[in-house]
Amino acid sequence: MTPANPTHDHKNLAAAWFEDLRNQICATFETIEDELTGKFADRPAGRFERKAWSRASSPGTDSGGGVMSIMRGRVFEKVGVNISTVHGTFSQELAQTIPGAAADPHFWAAGISLVAHMQNPHVPAVHMNTRHIVTTKAWFGGGADLTPMFPNDQDTSDFHAALRTVCDRHAPNYYRDFKAWCDQYFHLRHRNEPRGVGGIFFDNLDSGDWEADYDFTRDVGLGFLDIYPQLVRRHMNRLWTKDDREHQLIRRGRYVEFNLLYDRGTQFGLKTGGNVEAILMSLPPEVRWP
Amino acid sequence: MTPANPTHDHKNLAAAWFEDLRNQICATFETIEDELTGKFADRPAGRFERKAWSRASSPGTDSGGGVMSIMRGRVFEKVGVNISTVHGTFSQELAQTIPGAAADPHFWAAGISLVAHMQNPHVPAVHMNTRHIVTTKAWFGGGADLTPMFPNDQDTSDFHAALRTVCDRHAPNYYRDFKAWCDQYFHLRHRNEPRGVGGIFFDNLDSGDWEADYDFTRDVGLGFLDIYPQLVRRHMNRLWTKDDREHQLIRRGRYVEFNLLYDRGTQFGLKTGGNVEAILMSLPPEVRWP
Repeated sequence: MTPANPTHDHKNLAAAWFEDLRNQICATFETIEDELTGKFADRPAGRFERKAWSRASSPGTDSGGGVMSIMRGRVFEKVGVNISTVHGTFSQELAQTIPGAAADPHFWAAGISLVAHMQNPHVPAVHMNTRHIVTTKAWFGGGADLTPMFPNDQDTSDFHAALRTVCDRHAPNYYRDFKAWCDQYFHLRHRNEPRGVGGIFFDNLDSGDWEADYDFTRDVGLGFLDIYPQLVRRHMNRLWTKDDREHQLIRRGRYVEFNLLYDRGTQFGLKTGGNVEAILMSLPPEVRWP
Repeated sequence: MTPANPTHDHKNLAAAWFEDLRNQICATFETIEDELTGKFADRPAGRFERKAWSRASSPGTDSGGGVMSIMRGRVFEKVGVNISTVHGTFSQELAQTIPGAAADPHFWAAGISLVAHMQNPHVPAVHMNTRHIVTTKAWFGGGADLTPMFPNDQDTSDFHAALRTVCDRHAPNYYRDFKAWCDQYFHLRHRNEPRGVGGIFFDNLDSGDWEADYDFTRDVGLGFLDIYPQLVRRHMNRLWTKDDREHQLIRRGRYVEFNLLYDRGTQFGLKTGGNVEAILMSLPPEVRWP
């Protein structure tokens, strides 16, 4: 049952889940850091560092904030896992483009956003994000997509199978629709190139059953947490060459191009006075445009 | 005297000048490559490579193109000097935003665009661009701005003095107005940071005297060609540390952020089906977001 205005409990539940998922992901990624036996095993295993930020606001006004978790490790060259819970008022211009905000520009939003850039060029980069947004309407959004430097059918197939399993548990059309949305969204128009091998992407999800949408959103996070570590462990001890690394650094340039030219989260964050350090944590640690 | 529709001669004069300036700049930069005695003097001196491209168009239609000149040298880590002469029809959306194009979307444009990223972190990066655009109106635009990794007053002062000399030769308000425009334009709003130490920026320059505007535009190019090589030679043999290089790679990240988030030339080029390789030649060869 969805109330006309989602209750305080719904907001608390969603925000608490994003924090819980963050904790599970960080713990798993630190365990992977411990397991490395390949190149860089002589370096110390990486650990996440946390940094809280508050949203810029009028003095005396609480408008929320977030916590960045970043790890610069020996498997994960740079991985950011951000959670945030913010509220405020959209600018008049932005309010016209957001569901339910044209008449009343107040909003509440919470989410988790993750981008991992890996040391080993044979380990795919990955992005996962889920969020809950409340205006006079309330909805969920998010997704996960894989960006291998050297795509291979097994990884692509396993990543999609995991997301399909999650989707099929909730609605027969979700995987087909959200995979197509992902392909359309993560596309570099200026190069007519996909960013990676896809995944799922969804937004404005409001089926009328808040609990069901919340469960689906949680399952997307858990599905990601199940499959991505498998792909990391599959490849993280493989050797790589200088040419492999060069290829990786060039492919990362495409990631930067997408995030700065097209990514709606980046544009939204920078336009709403979000935390620049948190928003741009998605940018790779080292990149080449030779 | 400006005719109602600029003559074929005006277009030819402008396009020929951009090519002439390109030749002068490339020759000077190659001479600088020969002069290095500091770090990397054991490497071969760099030389420009040229690559022509044609604008995508309907079969059988000539819509112009350009020539990229790129040098990956021992002083100039990556420098691109592009010239192009293109013509066609703006999309309906774009035509509304371009002077003189709302009623008739045909356009002709020629220009030169240069970005240099240097090996030595003590040598400033630089950008210079001048262009002539013809719709039912005709105007010049361009500018030059300096992006030192370690700003110092002497370089900043000399760079601005050179541009001021050029401007003052043509109109008493040019330097003041075009410096202010540059400061406003080359600004990273999300970080509230200038891109560098400024220079001049001008657009829609149509004083009513085509010859005078053409002379000013040429002088901007020649002023750049006079001052920038002085700054390169001043610093190119200085030693640098690993920390200096790291600082340079991080500052280059700001350059990427500006070019992909805000740069109008980049947006214009990508939206009008320009040559992606030429447009993104401005991106630095190596960058870090640690």
